[in-house]
Amino acid sequence: MHRTRVRVAEDALDANTTIAQANRADFDRESVKVVNLMSAPGAGKTALLEAVFRAGMGDVRAGVLEGDVQGSLDADRLAHLHVPVTQLNTDGGFGGECHLDANMVRSALPALALEEIDLLVIENVGNLVCPAEFRVGEDAKAMVCSVTEGEDKPLKYPLMFRACDLVVVNKIDLLPHLDYDLDKLLNNLEAVHPGVEHMAVSARTGEGVEGFRDWLVHAAEREGVPA
Amino acid sequence: MHRTRVRVAEDALDANTTIAQANRADFDRESVKVVNLMSAPGAGKTALLEAVFRAGMGDVRAGVLEGDVQGSLDADRLAHLHVPVTQLNTDGGFGGECHLDANMVRSALPALALEEIDLLVIENVGNLVCPAEFRVGEDAKAMVCSVTEGEDKPLKYPLMFRACDLVVVNKIDLLPHLDYDLDKLLNNLEAVHPGVEHMAVSARTGEGVEGFRDWLVHAAEREGVPA
Repeated sequence: MHRTRVRVAEDALDANTTIAQANRADFDRESVKVVNLMSAPGAGKTALLEAVFRAGMGDVRAGVLEGDVQGSLDADRLAHLHVPVTQLNTDGGFGGECHLDANMVRSALPALALEEIDLLVIENVGNLVCPAEFRVGEDAKAMVCSVTEGEDKPLKYPLMFRACDLVVVNKIDLLPHLDYDLDKLLNNLEAVHPGVEHMAVSARTGEGVEGFRDWLVHAAEREGVPA
Repeated sequence: MHRTRVRVAEDALDANTTIAQANRADFDRESVKVVNLMSAPGAGKTALLEAVFRAGMGDVRAGVLEGDVQGSLDADRLAHLHVPVTQLNTDGGFGGECHLDANMVRSALPALALEEIDLLVIENVGNLVCPAEFRVGEDAKAMVCSVTEGEDKPLKYPLMFRACDLVVVNKIDLLPHLDYDLDKLLNNLEAVHPGVEHMAVSARTGEGVEGFRDWLVHAAEREGVPA
């Protein structure tokens, strides 16, 4: 009697990781680097991307996948800048999810002209908790943290701050009007994610925006960064 | 042959609703009114409560249940004001949840001296999506919306703005330094939740805080508001 035994590998993957890897394979096939951009609601992800695209990305052809629970307000803002933008809403069919997961991103792939871009920025749903838990096939994770949110956020949402390769501190033009200690924020950040790259910017005035632009350009040009 | 037929009621409740009703029954037994306070991270829920408790609640004995993914920073801030505060973290045993649900609140009930308070403010996890989806046994839902988050938030997170009985627009001391149109925010709010009560405050300067204090006092004194 012939027997077949199927062994479940010890490192069997959960469904999200499996789909994230499939996304990643598609991105690799088209030589597209992918940045997963996260933040709390209203921290300025879209404003920062607007500032970057206005400044120009040099030879890098960038596209954006906009994740929102509902609506296309951010996608409309970016479309004015002649950047290819695809809107992904988490309400229709996904139940109003508070984050993007690999399957949602996969559902948007047919709408993305990957062969026409070098860098895809995935603007996640505004939320400091769950987006950090779901890989979507990205090369790097970045987050925007506004000075108006207070210095305690790394301690209260450590997973998000730990998951990111870059923390962009935004709205520094408001520092003179706030009781906010930037050193305290950086100390809290160091406590939860020692040595993580960070930069301070104002999407509104443009201060420091070139640093984020350079980081994105570098992300687009990197080779073989493990997911 | 004897037959027993069990009919599932058409309005069979999901587990969260069942537990929320049990919480509510416990609150009613002790004549405690409950407000579920929600916002994005850093919108100023704790700062607003600090300002209210400093101003004083008159005869109303208030307590706070602090919901955070991790840590007790906010509870520590409020404890200085001699308000009974119970910390509820969503990481230990709850998997780092991005919201409070009825079962989490129920797990905290033994630590709450309900017989010693008239009003329980439940400060939810900072998040504009999921907290709006879970009743916890509250009498009313209120949310804090900071002017630094932009005017578009009611359109992007409509469920949260629709679920609330009160929208507190915070950080209005920053208005002179922002490109922010308060009328635009109120128009967007009216579009998703016509007629909802709202007020503009600055927890930092104290402007308008008495309005929120009065609303809380009124909430504590209300009789028979349906959950």
